Formats: sequence, structure tokens, C-alpha cells
Amino acid sequence: MQQTISKKAIVRLSIYRRYLRSLIRQGESHVYSHELAARTGYTSSQVRRDLMGANAEGSASKGYKIKDLIHKLDEFLDGDEPAKVVLFGAGKLGKAILQFFLNHQRSLQLVAAFDNDLEKTDRVICGVHCYHIDQAKEIIPNLEATLAIITAPDAAIPQLSSIISESGIRGVLNFAPAPMALDSRIDEQHIDITSELQALACLSRSR
Amino acid sequence: MQQTISKKAIVRLSIYRRYLRSLIRQGESHVYSHELAARTGYTSSQVRRDLMGANAEGSASKGYKIKDLIHKLDEFLDGDEPAKVVLFGAGKLGKAILQFFLNHQRSLQLVAAFDNDLEKTDRVICGVHCYHIDQAKEIIPNLEATLAIITAPDAAIPQLSSIISESGIRGVLNFAPAPMALDSRIDEQHIDITSELQALACLSRSR
Repeated sequence: MQQTISKKAIVRLSIYRRYLRSLIRQGESHVYSHELAARTGYTSSQVRRDLMGANAEGSASKGYKIKDLIHKLDEFLDGDEPAKVVLFGAGKLGKAILQFFLNHQRSLQLVAAFDNDLEKTDRVICGVHCYHIDQAKEIIPNLEATLAIITAPDAAIPQLSSIISESGIRGVLNFAPAPMALDSRIDEQHIDITSELQALACLSRSR
Repeated sequence: MQQTISKKAIVRLSIYRRYLRSLIRQGESHVYSHELAARTGYTSSQVRRDLMGANAEGSASKGYKIKDLIHKLDEFLDGDEPAKVVLFGAGKLGKAILQFFLNHQRSLQLVAAFDNDLEKTDRVICGVHCYHIDQAKEIIPNLEATLAIITAPDAAIPQLSSIISESGIRGVLNFAPAPMALDSRIDEQHIDITSELQALACLSRSR
């Protein structure tokens, strides 16, 4: 079933769920697709299609029951076991991203960090052991990690591409300045903050 | 002229420039559009259209002279004066993003930080003064800041939306969990790391 849903749809489902949780905190019990649409910036029909893809159904008169909808989305998005994540680059950015975003994500579990700086290795970082990067190809399959977060500098990317291709990683969230050269089996999301900042600066001048 | 180029095109130009700089470091002098395309994942015709939009011309036989091309892109992307940026949320994530991405960006200059935590205010953070958030509406126009980076928690978003709408900010890079409700004059880029992580986890299970 999950085979047929796109990554963009999964991102939207995650956004809907976050909004639904805030509605629960406000004491709401039901929500219409057009309300979800208005808050999240998508169309009502898009919202209904996405929720149908996650096996959730609403009624035309009352909309969706929020608690049931969150339960369906939890089942669909989180699965039974958390996905195991490794961090490449145990510097300030990596640690800040983990603390800010990975905590309280029940669907993700950090299992190891890697760095090439001997001052960072063989320590505990964000609750996990930080190994030297040269140990990664051996350790990642043993830990059954399938996801990687990359906050390493440009120069590390060729070595990381090789490690990731050979260690069973299936998804990468990459904050490094350049995208990686990965084979198509591996899903890479490159978060290109440098270019986003650049674009903002350029657009702000042209307005 | 810059009125007519899209934000996505600006992001692509920034990506091309970063690759061109790495070619210069490798001692290259010329590049063809198809090489830029292969490295960046766009099509050759897209690359040529984008570069034409930045007033850069190549020759069919030798391609683009890299130094001239970088110079054109500098002129186009950076302008004469750096855009002034403020940071909302002077915690670990904000500081890490500034250190990792804002340094060496000649087109952007951090001018102030804001937080609601009295332990962080009235100090120097990343080389600028950190003010209390209640001073933002007064200080931002005085500093002529036009861009904002947001690394504040969800709860701060309503107050920040009001501040940003009333202080002359024209572009926002938002790392908070939810997008803001800004009027259409203000360009918001929401970097939704929570949902990206969620999508990676969900996709990695479905493969």
C-alpha cells in the first residue's frame, strides 16, 4: 500500500498530522477537509485524496473525527518499529538538528554518529556512540540503520557517498552544501540552505 | 530584469555557481552546459536558459569561460550591498545554522538576533547583539533588515508573524515546525525538517 504513495504525499500527511495534534490541544473533535486545506495551503481535494491514501475516511456532514484521523496517520506514517538513523558529522549543526527535530519523533531512532575528528570520536553524542568514519561500513549494517542525516562539509561527500552506497542505507537527509552522487535505490533529500539564503537575498533586492 | 526570474531559477543559479567555483579550484577554465547539467541534475537546455537569464553567454565550441561566468553570477546574485538579515531564536539551532551557512556569504549580513529568553538577550551572539523579542518591531526598521531566519519553537510563530508583517521584512527562511501566516508580499521558505525526516522513515520502510 505504501508503495503507491509519493514522498510528497507523505510530507503532506505529516503536515496534516501536526495540525491535527494542535487542534486536539485546542479541544476540537472534528475537522473538515477544507479547514485542513486552508491551514496547510493545499486544496481540499488534495487533502481528501491524501487522507484516502492513508485509509482515512470522513463524513460529508461532520468531516473527520480528529482522534481517529491521527490514529490512522500514526499507523500509516510511523509503522511498528522506529527507523534507525545514523548521523554523519557530529558537529554543532548535527547536534542542533538532532536536538531540535529528532527528539519526540517516535518513528525515528538515532543509533550512532560518525565523524573524522578524533576529538569527537569515541564519545557519547546525543545519547549515542560517536565512531570514527572509517568504521562506518562495518558498523552501520550491524546496527541495521537504514537512514542517514548528513551535516558534514563538502570535502567529506565523496567518502560518504561510498559509505552510504555500501552499507544498506536507503534514505538520506543531506545538509551538506552539495548533493551526493547516490544510486537511484537510495532516496536523497538535499536541504540546500546556502542556496535558499542566496535566493532570499536576491529576491529581496528585486522587489 | 531580476523581476522576471523565478525563485527556483535563482536557487539553480546559486547551485551552478557553487559547482563552477569547485571547477576553478580544480584548475578548469571552460565548461559546457551539458557538464553543468550532468553535475547538478538539471537538463542542458534548463542550464542554458538560466544562464541566459543571468546575462551570461557561452560559445558552442568552447562552452562557458568559467571565470567570466562566475563574475556574471556574482553580479546577478550578490548585488552591490549585502542584504541585512535578522535571526529569531538565538538557540543552538540558530547559532549552528549561522555558523555553517551564513559565514562567507558575501550577499548576506547578520545584523541582529532576537529571543524571548532573558538569559540570551543583551549579549553578543554570532557577532551581533541579541535583543529581546519585544524590541523587534522598533529595531528591525532602524537596522534596515529585509530578511529573517527563524529557528523558534511553534509557540512563538503568531508573535513572529505579526513582527515580520510590520517591520519591513521581505523574505523569511523558516525552520520552525509550522509555516507562518504571512501576507503575499513576503516570501517565505519553510524548511520542514520534521516532515522530511518523517517521509524518509516512511519511505525506507515501504521499500
